[in-house]
Amino acid sequence: MNIRFYNGTILTLEDTTADENGCLTLLSGEVWVFDDTIGFVGNPATDKTVSKLHPQIKWDKEINLNGNLIMPGFKDAHTHSAMTFLRSYADDLPLDKWLNEKVFPMEAKLTDDKIYEYSKIAIKEYLTSGITANFDMYISPDPVIQASVDMGFRTVMTGGLNDFTQSVPEIEECYKKYNGYNDLISYELGFHAEYTCSEGLLRDLSALANKLHAPVFCHNSETQKEVVECVKRYGMTPTVYLDNIGMFNYGGGGYHCVHMTDSDINVFEKRGMSIVLNPASNLKLASGIAPVSLFMKKGINLALGTDGPASNNALDMFREMFLTTALAKYRENDASAVDANEVLKMATLGGAKAMGLRNCDTLSRGKKADLIVIDLSQPNMQPINNITKNLVYSGSKINVILTMINGNILYQV
Amino acid sequence: MNIRFYNGTILTLEDTTADENGCLTLLSGEVWVFDDTIGFVGNPATDKTVSKLHPQIKWDKEINLNGNLIMPGFKDAHTHSAMTFLRSYADDLPLDKWLNEKVFPMEAKLTDDKIYEYSKIAIKEYLTSGITANFDMYISPDPVIQASVDMGFRTVMTGGLNDFTQSVPEIEECYKKYNGYNDLISYELGFHAEYTCSEGLLRDLSALANKLHAPVFCHNSETQKEVVECVKRYGMTPTVYLDNIGMFNYGGGGYHCVHMTDSDINVFEKRGMSIVLNPASNLKLASGIAPVSLFMKKGINLALGTDGPASNNALDMFREMFLTTALAKYRENDASAVDANEVLKMATLGGAKAMGLRNCDTLSRGKKADLIVIDLSQPNMQPINNITKNLVYSGSKINVILTMINGNILYQV
Repeated sequence: MNIRFYNGTILTLEDTTADENGCLTLLSGEVWVFDDTIGFVGNPATDKTVSKLHPQIKWDKEINLNGNLIMPGFKDAHTHSAMTFLRSYADDLPLDKWLNEKVFPMEAKLTDDKIYEYSKIAIKEYLTSGITANFDMYISPDPVIQASVDMGFRTVMTGGLNDFTQSVPEIEECYKKYNGYNDLISYELGFHAEYTCSEGLLRDLSALANKLHAPVFCHNSETQKEVVECVKRYGMTPTVYLDNIGMFNYGGGGYHCVHMTDSDINVFEKRGMSIVLNPASNLKLASGIAPVSLFMKKGINLALGTDGPASNNALDMFREMFLTTALAKYRENDASAVDANEVLKMATLGGAKAMGLRNCDTLSRGKKADLIVIDLSQPNMQPINNITKNLVYSGSKINVILTMINGNILYQV
Repeated sequence: MNIRFYNGTILTLEDTTADENGCLTLLSGEVWVFDDTIGFVGNPATDKTVSKLHPQIKWDKEINLNGNLIMPGFKDAHTHSAMTFLRSYADDLPLDKWLNEKVFPMEAKLTDDKIYEYSKIAIKEYLTSGITANFDMYISPDPVIQASVDMGFRTVMTGGLNDFTQSVPEIEECYKKYNGYNDLISYELGFHAEYTCSEGLLRDLSALANKLHAPVFCHNSETQKEVVECVKRYGMTPTVYLDNIGMFNYGGGGYHCVHMTDSDINVFEKRGMSIVLNPASNLKLASGIAPVSLFMKKGINLALGTDGPASNNALDMFREMFLTTALAKYRENDASAVDANEVLKMATLGGAKAMGLRNCDTLSRGKKADLIVIDLSQPNMQPINNITKNLVYSGSKINVILTMINGNILYQV
């Protein structure tokens, strides 16, 4: 399929500098998609490489953007899609009741068929929020991946290995099976968290990471309790302990990272690791607020995630973006903390980097066509003082009018 | 116009108890609207008062709800509509730069025509978020009220009196002019805040309130600085000082109320006053998190507001609802704090009470028809484990498919 978007306002995110009004660089013009790939971005009339080609192209679809914004899709860098089954089923409860009376009994009843169907609900919601790829952790990868493949959604899968589910050989098998399996799917090594894995299991996974030269991802320092207990167990924080056993020799990342010491941050810096922030989940489960300004000062790659629908409960990157900047302002007692443009980069470029998706991060010729269209005529985008700040501060699912993944339009209003 | 909504799931909010799954009481059936008034709610086939009448009614419009939710509209109990002009114009700045370099120079250029147009943008956005009435504070009430009247929107206006703008006689004139002016409009006494008003001005307004037997509303204890300075000035916190000069003899309310002492809360309790929470604004401007659980324990009437688009920047009750419960959970370090159903009541019943809108708070026969329809088929509402919790935890503007005010459909997707 050859698809032409014209009359658009374009945020390529190739150039991430801001103009004098504090808006990230925008272009006017067209975006061409040939099959799964972006063929051209800009003004074809003034671009010598395509101006002659233009009249000869046979378009399958031409979409007038009417000045609306076209930009790279959001990357949801930490989620558990299948957990839609628990949405609004187990809220407003203390943690122990939530786990023992609601989550565990429900999860025990889940079949692969149900995991597949619940994952599909999540994917439908990602599309309404302009999310074009997710970094999904779940204990049963097969039905989750099948849902993504069947719906044309891009998923980076990671394991939820712990003492009760999955094993290191299973993780290795997934790694080999799912990397190269399908254009839309990749697989990264991962485990649930330090506190759900025995020392032997962690050392075995670390050995695998070193054998494969692969990065490793896990929940990390989500709660204070988790950190305190790890220090009791090993005399070290989770990050320092895991690095000590060689887990991060080839990088990786942490989900949440709310309660981090300077030594922890130094490990992330030294290993070139990513932190995936989950602000809504961390509030709702009373975990805390991550020190985002500090992470930025250290140059850590930051990404945003919704976490799963059992603990958020929405799969909405607009909510996460607003919270990331607003909570930083509250935490630092400084209304200028964590500029909205930085947050927009976390939700797109930062996520892509964390997820190893270097081929669909920006709107650039040759990249995979993972893009969204934002309706600027909605009242929440008016007046248009600053488009990129509007996205973060007042943007909503209501603004997403088209979501394309790998050149396919999967959602259009 | 006679309008019939049928095949609906109905949240009347007349009965605010929850079922065994923690969902507020719902009905199945129909809602009839005759001109500006709700004529019937329930199942007409089994209701003797209307079963014979039913076939004789000539409907101007019959709307199949397809099982979707019909409920009272949200009340945005604190906002400054006209400040859309500053949306995304002045963010990520320290407070002094924000005020002196951005807000003041821009505000000085505003004409009544512009205030009118910017208010209309806000009203359009309220409608997309299912907001059917606002409690609007602004220094130029006339163009704001004109925008509401022209668009059919319900507004409770209050003054932004301070040492530089408006005067007590002007406030009195507005009070007399706008109460009874139009079905959609009412007016409450108000002033900007203790720290922007001289003692003489506050005493004059208090005298007016006592003369009119009227409640008074103002920004109150939004920042720690404001409280500290008031204590320096008068030896009392703002609430205690204002109550001391008789300002709240006939009740009223406070916007924000982030930094409250026990004595302050006692004044609110004793006077039957309302607190309007503005969680998004309080984060973004680094003001703090209000002690909502404490207010609830004391039985204070609570309402939710977006605050103005210069400090939020969205006019979105879904955002405010999620933040109210999630921030309470974070603040109290308790995932069971401030149940979502309580928050839903704040956004509807609590707002109506604070605003004196007793004729459009519930879906009941004889009440004004201020109602909304929520699309339950969107993926963020699936699966339907609990509809009222879904609204608070994963609801979004994308779910609002119809907004009716005073019997008129002002927004329909």
